[in-house]
Amino acid sequence: MRRILVTNDDGIYAPGLRAAVRSVEDLGEVVVVAPSGQRSGVGRSVSVFEPLRMAEVSLDGRRAYAVSGTPTDSVILGIFVVMKGELPDLAVSGINVGENISTDTVTTSGTIGAAIEAASYGVPAIAASIQVADQGDKFDNNHSVEYRFDTAINILRRVAIRVLERGMPAGVDILNINLPLNATDDTEIVVTRLARKIFRTAVEERRDPRGRPYYWIGGDLICGEREGTDVRAVYQEGKISVTPLTIDSTARVEFAEVLDLVENI
Amino acid sequence: MRRILVTNDDGIYAPGLRAAVRSVEDLGEVVVVAPSGQRSGVGRSVSVFEPLRMAEVSLDGRRAYAVSGTPTDSVILGIFVVMKGELPDLAVSGINVGENISTDTVTTSGTIGAAIEAASYGVPAIAASIQVADQGDKFDNNHSVEYRFDTAINILRRVAIRVLERGMPAGVDILNINLPLNATDDTEIVVTRLARKIFRTAVEERRDPRGRPYYWIGGDLICGEREGTDVRAVYQEGKISVTPLTIDSTARVEFAEVLDLVENI
Repeated sequence: MRRILVTNDDGIYAPGLRAAVRSVEDLGEVVVVAPSGQRSGVGRSVSVFEPLRMAEVSLDGRRAYAVSGTPTDSVILGIFVVMKGELPDLAVSGINVGENISTDTVTTSGTIGAAIEAASYGVPAIAASIQVADQGDKFDNNHSVEYRFDTAINILRRVAIRVLERGMPAGVDILNINLPLNATDDTEIVVTRLARKIFRTAVEERRDPRGRPYYWIGGDLICGEREGTDVRAVYQEGKISVTPLTIDSTARVEFAEVLDLVENI
Repeated sequence: MRRILVTNDDGIYAPGLRAAVRSVEDLGEVVVVAPSGQRSGVGRSVSVFEPLRMAEVSLDGRRAYAVSGTPTDSVILGIFVVMKGELPDLAVSGINVGENISTDTVTTSGTIGAAIEAASYGVPAIAASIQVADQGDKFDNNHSVEYRFDTAINILRRVAIRVLERGMPAGVDILNINLPLNATDDTEIVVTRLARKIFRTAVEERRDPRGRPYYWIGGDLICGEREGTDVRAVYQEGKISVTPLTIDSTARVEFAEVLDLVENI
């Protein structure tokens, strides 16, 4: 019996998590362990300073576990407590409300953070996200804006089946799937590389009622990225983007060239 | 006049931050912006839910800025508020008390998280860390255990000079420098790739005074890694490790092979 770990970063009660469960529930034993609430932007943060709580909850009648920490913490407790240290055959993270594209999001997204943690144990991992109409919806902890997951469920299911059958291609740790707004089962799927950036970062200074400054990190989206990238596929071409990721970020470079920069002469 | 942004994840009052400042202070205008306290394990977390405070503090008589958020937040406020959106010529993150080696730490270390944020704007970034005798020292917010930074300062200074002169080798975003315990100016320097793992993750269950379970994430170090890796160089060979990193974690794989996994047939 195959075992599939399902998690996310939008929290245990997010509709996208239930959508992820639906996409894989008949492919094996599904174990659901996710943060107790919204944990966007935390990347692969791991809780090393504080202990964690884990509560059993019911999700559409299915047992699931809500973790007080990050998505990565959820993967760790999922594997080492709930699954007693036995690695799952597949990890699925999502379905995230909010596209996770470009090198900016690979390291800041909790959805991908959880996938990286699973991949670090050699578990094939799939992250799935859908584009939002309004960037603010990414951080909507009440899940008040309704998004449809039908197409995402179909694709996630198909990819999960094939990865369980054949494993990941050599050198691939994570498949990062992103659906554009209004994707249907007929929307073209393209394999992409990460765009360099997605945000034109900006900071807004405000004054509190006592006149002292505070700062909000914000910024607009960059939509005009180069051909072949995930940002281009989702934003400009309206295609479904699948990006193969590696957790080994060693640069491909002649080591002699690097040694030349660091050696004492 | 060259401008160098210095930050860390151990916090603005960490001795390692002052060591980083000392290593580059005569190479240009140094701008110091760092978290107000210990922020280990947060990777490239960015604060999107809460606003940030930034306080001017004095560090050995030098003006510096303490940010209420993460190392990445510090880089963002450093560039977009303190430096008014003008990119620095170099970013230095560290000197961290605690080695940052393997793919496990690249995505969980705040030291490297800050370097990734700087690199995302095209700023050459150097992360520097020293091995600790006791893993607990990594999280010592009182800086009560004294570590010597002399050799780290010398190397960081040398690499900073050369990167400012020549730029990074093509394809390299970050140089990740790690010194073994008791390194001296004569310790051999090797260019390495990331080891896959550094931790044998484990979770410890405890009971609170009311009998309810809580969990600590922990685990032992893996010291027996393959030749050519950073973990092997630092732990087994006692050498100084320099790993060139890219922020583009797209896997090197035939895209047709990936398409085959995802396409609707």
